[in-house]
Amino acid sequence: MPFSFDLQHLAPGSAARRGTFHTPHGPVETPAFMPVGTQATIKGLTIDQVRSTGAQMILGNTYHLALRPGEEIVRDLGGLHRFMGWDGPILTDSGGFQLYSLAQNTKITEQAAVFRSHIDGSLLELSPERSIAIQEALGSDVAMVLDHVIALPAADEAIQDACQRTIRWASRCRAAAKSQNQAQFAIVQGGLNPELRVWCAAQLAALDFPGYAVGGLSVGEAPDEMYRVLDVVCPALPTNKPRYLMGVGTPQDLLEAIHRGIDLFDCVIPTRNGRNALAFTDSGPLRLRNAVHAKDDRPLEAGCPCLACRDSRAYLRHLFLADEMLGPILLTHHNLTYYQRLLAAARQAIAADAFTSFTAAKRAAWRSQVVA
Amino acid sequence: MPFSFDLQHLAPGSAARRGTFHTPHGPVETPAFMPVGTQATIKGLTIDQVRSTGAQMILGNTYHLALRPGEEIVRDLGGLHRFMGWDGPILTDSGGFQLYSLAQNTKITEQAAVFRSHIDGSLLELSPERSIAIQEALGSDVAMVLDHVIALPAADEAIQDACQRTIRWASRCRAAAKSQNQAQFAIVQGGLNPELRVWCAAQLAALDFPGYAVGGLSVGEAPDEMYRVLDVVCPALPTNKPRYLMGVGTPQDLLEAIHRGIDLFDCVIPTRNGRNALAFTDSGPLRLRNAVHAKDDRPLEAGCPCLACRDSRAYLRHLFLADEMLGPILLTHHNLTYYQRLLAAARQAIAADAFTSFTAAKRAAWRSQVVA
Repeated sequence: MPFSFDLQHLAPGSAARRGTFHTPHGPVETPAFMPVGTQATIKGLTIDQVRSTGAQMILGNTYHLALRPGEEIVRDLGGLHRFMGWDGPILTDSGGFQLYSLAQNTKITEQAAVFRSHIDGSLLELSPERSIAIQEALGSDVAMVLDHVIALPAADEAIQDACQRTIRWASRCRAAAKSQNQAQFAIVQGGLNPELRVWCAAQLAALDFPGYAVGGLSVGEAPDEMYRVLDVVCPALPTNKPRYLMGVGTPQDLLEAIHRGIDLFDCVIPTRNGRNALAFTDSGPLRLRNAVHAKDDRPLEAGCPCLACRDSRAYLRHLFLADEMLGPILLTHHNLTYYQRLLAAARQAIAADAFTSFTAAKRAAWRSQVVA
Repeated sequence: MPFSFDLQHLAPGSAARRGTFHTPHGPVETPAFMPVGTQATIKGLTIDQVRSTGAQMILGNTYHLALRPGEEIVRDLGGLHRFMGWDGPILTDSGGFQLYSLAQNTKITEQAAVFRSHIDGSLLELSPERSIAIQEALGSDVAMVLDHVIALPAADEAIQDACQRTIRWASRCRAAAKSQNQAQFAIVQGGLNPELRVWCAAQLAALDFPGYAVGGLSVGEAPDEMYRVLDVVCPALPTNKPRYLMGVGTPQDLLEAIHRGIDLFDCVIPTRNGRNALAFTDSGPLRLRNAVHAKDDRPLEAGCPCLACRDSRAYLRHLFLADEMLGPILLTHHNLTYYQRLLAAARQAIAADAFTSFTAAKRAAWRSQVVA
């Protein structure tokens, strides 16, 4: 298969790793952050603008694309890459997260999850086999196995049940694979239970997937609880395979997770917050609706190459108060650029054996400014 | 003053003119179309994207910018050009159109119009002097005089009254001017009454403004009624000054007005329709929400250099059905590019003595396709 993971450097005093993940649509330098393109678009940006943030690989969503426009239309139009005009690597999630986020409209059996569509009420049966068939029709480089994500806190028995189902479904996903140009990543579940997490990781590691994800986190638990899960899961995963932390997180979360050995991330935090007038900077977040910015001629961040940082904070604030689309557009571009620059700097720091001091400096700077 | 209008070519068999309007922020090749940036942004586009449509000059709105963020903030931040990052020419309207569009919240006396703000209910007094002061604070290249626009149909007496006030206000605007870097355009009113229109044009022509506009049209009258007004007004205006038809119009309207001697246009039709999934093409408009486009791999228009035409109609339709911002963004870019290409082609046709056949060919093509 046209996939491999080259591990180039390990940081001293940290589990941080510098690597390259090779895919049919090009390499991904890791650690890397994938912007979220749920409905075949990163909200508010043209595909050129996505590229200009420094993004290497993006995420699409199996559940949403299967409902609309339907994976057959995407396949018939040349696959998701061509459909949305992105020629780099794409990872698709499996729909497993929707077992959690749309739990009220979902019935789960050993065979499959059955969703009542949030769009028109029609039924979508998502079995492991169907999830893989959809992802193969979409033509993503990386397909995620269908996993069973549950809400936390939950009883140990429920967590164990979902965890075991996740392992059985991973095997079925693998058996269902027909494409040579798509790698499947398995997903470790187990809630906040360290024994279950390690057991699940070991079971999946024995199946020798081309990559591994940590799922079921960032569902309401405290950051420290998430970090403790990573402390035990990462050492239980194969060293020579990419590790993907699903749906995480803040800039702080990313550095903490990289420190624990994570290579890949996706999250809506930079895009969703950008649409809501929050800009990430090296001095901490700025809330652009605040009156303090009304006459401020400075850019969000000096030296930032994004589209927003050619304008004043006063102009950006005006756009949000006037309810103009350009406000969300520009802050989305800024925040994604911020995330990509942060990851690029992290990669450099790891390669230079300076990741620990890099992280300490970032943490201190983020705390330096009263939130405005 | 750093303004001049070079008339380079007159079309045979037509009143169409090919010219160049020189401003402190560069030349405008005419006939030209100005996209509308009411609140210091062309809705949905970055300023680079606006430039890439071929736009030469853009429009800002005095009433809206005076209310939010306030002209003093714009002035203190370096003027409207710097505020919104546009280094080309800018024309600001005077607020006169809001006397019509916000009539229910407006009280008009000889001294001024008093608006109750649509944002917070506060009062804004817009006299001719105040309109010019605001426009000078904004720093636009061209300021429009404050005119009295009324709803049609109206009694001749009311039209005449508004028309005479418009002439008196034009004189007051001129007397109020303090800037050497801003040209004022006078505005011909007079409803659909040809005698009043010609009389108003003659009165204003005698005042020797650097440019003239035809206002109070595109307020619900039929296209042919508008064309008949242009038939009488254009010959009554000075030949050696630019002529601007305010708030017009469809692609058809533009060619009809150019044929009658108009040099400048602004209109929300390409942007507002783009946001509503209607795309202009040489075969007529396409409505992207229609099911006929669901699996259509073709671009909106073959050979169009816009950002939308790298994608399939099926993808664009998907974006609108999924309520994604990128749909309005891409169709706004397409429609503005369509308008700019249409005007560029019209300029070429005039220069090549081919404007009449050019217009006939466009008209025939627009009718060639069943609306989809």
